[in-house]
Amino acid sequence: MATTYTQHHLTLPSLGRGSHLVTDHIVSSLPQISGIKCGLLHLFLQHTSCALSMNENWDDDVRADMSDALDGIVKEDKAGKGIYRHDAEGSDDMPAHIKSSLIGASVSVPISNGKLATGTWQGIWFLEFRNMKQRRKVLATIQGEKM
Amino acid sequence: MATTYTQHHLTLPSLGRGSHLVTDHIVSSLPQISGIKCGLLHLFLQHTSCALSMNENWDDDVRADMSDALDGIVKEDKAGKGIYRHDAEGSDDMPAHIKSSLIGASVSVPISNGKLATGTWQGIWFLEFRNMKQRRKVLATIQGEKM
Amino acid sequence: MATTYTQHHLTLPSLGRGSHLVTDHIVSSLPQISGIKCGLLHLFLQHTSCALSMNENWDDDVRADMSDALDGIVKEDKAGKGIYRHDAEGSDDMPAHIKSSLIGASVSVPISNGKLATGTWQGIWFLEFRNMKQRRKVLATIQGEKM
Repeated sequence: MATTYTQHHLTLPSLGRGSHLVTDHIVSSLPQISGIKCGLLHLFLQHTSCALSMNENWDDDVRADMSDALDGIVKEDKAGKGIYRHDAEGSDDMPAHIKSSLIGASVSVPISNGKLATGTWQGIWFLEFRNMKQRRKVLATIQGEKM
Repeated sequence: MATTYTQHHLTLPSLGRGSHLVTDHIVSSLPQISGIKCGLLHLFLQHTSCALSMNENWDDDVRADMSDALDGIVKEDKAGKGIYRHDAEGSDDMPAHIKSSLIGASVSVPISNGKLATGTWQGIWFLEFRNMKQRRKVLATIQGEKM
Repeated sequence: MATTYTQHHLTLPSLGRGSHLVTDHIVSSLPQISGIKCGLLHLFLQHTSCALSMNENWDDDVRADMSDALDGIVKEDKAGKGIYRHDAEGSDDMPAHIKSSLIGASVSVPISNGKLATGTWQGIWFLEFRNMKQRRKVLATIQGEKM
């Protein structure tokens, strides 16, 4: 059995604060997935104020509700009450770091017969927690048994 | 050194809403673990309203407290106040998606000498966030150096 | 291409309750990383009341704010009001289990050309949620294509 590891630097589109479905962008950026019979795709954000997750791939409302719910769980100090020590980069910065650790900066997805083995309703989400649009870098590691 | 990748489709028992210890079910469903000298088990739920986690393997109370705590962190709109946009599938649905991203849909566990290399008090948890019992599918990827 | 899997048992320094940057400790404990051209480092805590995460590597305030924020999200029953069923091991115990599942007990980090391929501002965090200092064990699995 021939096994392989390859890595690929991707840049996500500048999507702005919110939860975004990026499955199609990721898959079209990684034609190497089609060469793997059995393996894993590891996606790793090289940043600390955004996140990756697997979640629902159909209804935009789920993504809007997710962002709102996270805003409810992790307080933002818009009134400048001194909730956080780390506040020099704006009121959205420290909440972004907290959300990043709660959701996580990476996902691992199985690859079967050249395709991501996701469930019917499952997609790859990129969650941007900063207000300003950013160009976010993802390092993709593809591993497995070749076709 | 001979390396191997194998994948296995598992179906979890219908366990109902709550936090469940599934280590024994997973291990007995995957005899292939015993053939790996050094590697990893990746468990991936193909769903978006449940989760997998590593946590305490002894006291049922920890699992009950976990479910209650998550219900406290992620609000459910039982009174129909319009907390969420996405509400057509029941008041338990959107909170389930949020909890799924907070906890995560997958875990990776080291395999050493044919066994999961978990700590003494550590087990694999499956967390079901929907009210109705569901048949949940897990795709297990086993990789590593063979015995 | 020669692929390799190795595992290494590490013990973290006794750091006490809080969020700690452990990148240097991890990297200096794992000289084997330098032998991997393309692969992954998987770090797995064999415990259920602490966590690993990737986050900001520069400002101590971010780590202090993270610990405080988690204390705000996951209530501790210091007044003994019976918030949790599982309370025999102290008021810090059950919140520690909850935080452990929220943040996660493991991280996977890409290795490129013998080094961790982290972003400029990204480091490995160990989060201790118990009050008493503990000696925590991490099982590191290094995999990939050799140099």
